[in-house]
Order: sequence, then C-alpha cells, then structure tokens
Amino acid sequence: MPRRRPGRPRLTEPSPEYRQRLEEIIETGAQVFHDRGYDAGSLDDVAAALDLRKASLYHYLRSKAQLLYFIFDRAISLSLQRLDEMADIADPRERLATLIAHQVRMVAEEPSLFSVFFDQRPRLDDAFEAEIRQKERAYVGRIAAIVQSAADAGELPPVDARHAAHAVLGMTSWIYKWFDPVRDDPDRVAETMTSLVLGQRPPPSAPSR
Amino acid sequence: MPRRRPGRPRLTEPSPEYRQRLEEIIETGAQVFHDRGYDAGSLDDVAAALDLRKASLYHYLRSKAQLLYFIFDRAISLSLQRLDEMADIADPRERLATLIAHQVRMVAEEPSLFSVFFDQRPRLDDAFEAEIRQKERAYVGRIAAIVQSAADAGELPPVDARHAAHAVLGMTSWIYKWFDPVRDDPDRVAETMTSLVLGQRPPPSAPSR
Repeated sequence: MPRRRPGRPRLTEPSPEYRQRLEEIIETGAQVFHDRGYDAGSLDDVAAALDLRKASLYHYLRSKAQLLYFIFDRAISLSLQRLDEMADIADPRERLATLIAHQVRMVAEEPSLFSVFFDQRPRLDDAFEAEIRQKERAYVGRIAAIVQSAADAGELPPVDARHAAHAVLGMTSWIYKWFDPVRDDPDRVAETMTSLVLGQRPPPSAPSR
Repeated sequence: MPRRRPGRPRLTEPSPEYRQRLEEIIETGAQVFHDRGYDAGSLDDVAAALDLRKASLYHYLRSKAQLLYFIFDRAISLSLQRLDEMADIADPRERLATLIAHQVRMVAEEPSLFSVFFDQRPRLDDAFEAEIRQKERAYVGRIAAIVQSAADAGELPPVDARHAAHAVLGMTSWIYKWFDPVRDDPDRVAETMTSLVLGQRPPPSAPSR
C-alpha cells in the first residue's frame, strides 16, 4: 500500500492492514495511559512501545486527545457489540445472566482499555464527550430494558430499572479494580454475580406435566 | 494557640481547631484533585480555594503526596468506621442490607473524596501504598464475612464470599460515576440494590405458631 502523506484526505476505505495497525495503536495507547496516566503519558511513549516513529502515528490520528477518544469509542463500541450479539436470547433470565457474564469477561480481558475508559473520563475533550455520552446512555438504556424484562418475568423483585442497571454495571465493571487473572476465573466471578442477582435457578420441573 | 513554626516537631496532641482545619484541607484537596486531576492540581490551588497562604498549608502537611495519602486514609477510615457502627446488628440479612445502605450513602455524600480514592490510586506514593492496601484488605475481609454469614443463614445462595464482597462493593461504589443528587435519592438506590441482592423480604410468618 502506498504511503499516505500526512494531511492528505483519505479517499478510500481504510485497508485491513490500516485498521489492524490502528487497533494496535489504540491498545498500546490504553496501556500507556493506564500505566502512566493520561497527563503523563505521551504519543512518544506510544510510538516507542510500538517501535514506530512518532511521525508515523500521525497517519492514524491527529493528536493525543484523539487517541483518547479512539480508546473511549472502542470500549463503548465493544460493549454495544456484545449486546447486539445476545439479541436473539429470548428468555429474560438467561439474557440477564449472559449480560453479566459478557460484562465480566469483557472487562477481565481488557483491563487497560476499561481502566482508561472508566478513570480518564474527565480528560476526554468536550468535542468528543457528547458522542460518547450518547452511546453510553444508549448502553445503560438497553441494560435497563434487560433488567426490566427480567423483573416483569418475575426473575427479579420489582426494582427501579435504571438504578438496577447501574447496579449490574457497577458490580461487573468494578472488577477492573480487583480482578487478578492469576487468581480469579472470570467464569466463576460471573457465576457468583449471577447467583447474587438472580438467585439460584429453581430445579427443573418434574417430567410429569 | 501559639503558631507552630514549620519543621518543629509537634509535642502535644493536635487541638480540635487544628484537626478541623486539617479536615477542611483534606476535603478541599479532594475537590481540587477531583476537578483537575492529581497531576494538574497543586497545593497552590488548595491554598487558594481555602484563602490560605501556601506556607500555612505546611503546618498541616509536608507535600502534595502526603495530602493525597490523607485523602486516601480518610476514605478508608470512614468506611471502616461505618462497619464498626453496625457491629451490634445480629441479624445477617439486616447487617448486609445496612452495609449496602451505608455504602450508598457514604459515596453519595462525598463524591469528590471517593472519586479521588477510587481513581487516583496509581498516584499514591509507594511509601503509603502498603498501609492503605492493608486497611483495604481488612475492609474487604469484613465485607466478605458479612456476605458469608448472610449465605450461611440462607439469605443468599451459596457464593464465593470474596467475589461476592467485591460485587457488593462494586455495585455500591460505582454510584460515584452516575449518582446525581438532584435526580437520585440515596435511600431509593439502596432499596433497589438491597432487593437485587437479597430479594424481597419474605412476608412475616403468620401469628399462629
């Protein structure tokens, strides 16, 4: 692929190689901002970690602020995508249990990405804040709907769906603070959280019906 | 009270006035570090917000790093103190419900303090880290014991007590991310979280027994 000159507008869809490199930059950016903090971390650090010249980074992004936005966008897009993947689960109890398991695994697998997403929000440029906030509201709204339908089906006691959605999000998101991949198994964590919220599944009804 | 010269060791217990002023400094420090971030916030900002000369701050603390430690120590000490206050609740269900309500109210009432406590941990000096970590472990251990005794009493399904403790802590701590004092009522939030974890209290048994 011919090298694109900085500043020249992109006229074609980015190639798979371009996207993959951008993904690497986002992942490395999350690590740098997680390890050093956003204020102390720099694009130089990101370039060095990837063994790239800093000038090459500018083929992929305009600024450190934009890199932070890319990290935020990746975290929230990943979350929304996981919800899309479970759209065909009809049973409200199973849907909520799957949501909890998805959330736990997602955060456990990408601790740097979600640390930055959760902790560096005040550093996000106002220009990007509105877009992320809108996606986040959509996300909380969809979780609230999943919680509400579990309550409607009698799988949860009657609860304020928005508060309960934040409770489920908090319980599962918080694992970025304490989860230790050496000691903790995401599936067991998800199991405990599911039991805590949904209680134990009642024994299957006897075959005579 | 005679003015203490900086650097001279304190030979007597601090006076109530001294303690109260130190509390104000800690509170203001939490606000400054919450609003600006720890790296960008300065002792000058803290002094300015209190209408003090910066030199006066040094009667109370040695450095910005020590102020951050004081903030951390206040947050964890407050949390432990709330646990002490509920030591005489014998009923496991009520103890867990009270814990949830305490946590929710505590975080809702001091959003700046807990934001700094939760988000600025990587900025805490290594010299202070061990002490805070030890108190925090004690805290998680006591929460795990409360969860375990609720499970033993049949109020919760069998769960991994440490994971469940982190789940309860996460659910309640997370409110610093979304709680809006104008819109949200801490007591209603606590109610929803209690129902979610403990289900609805079974109706009182009939008087005939």
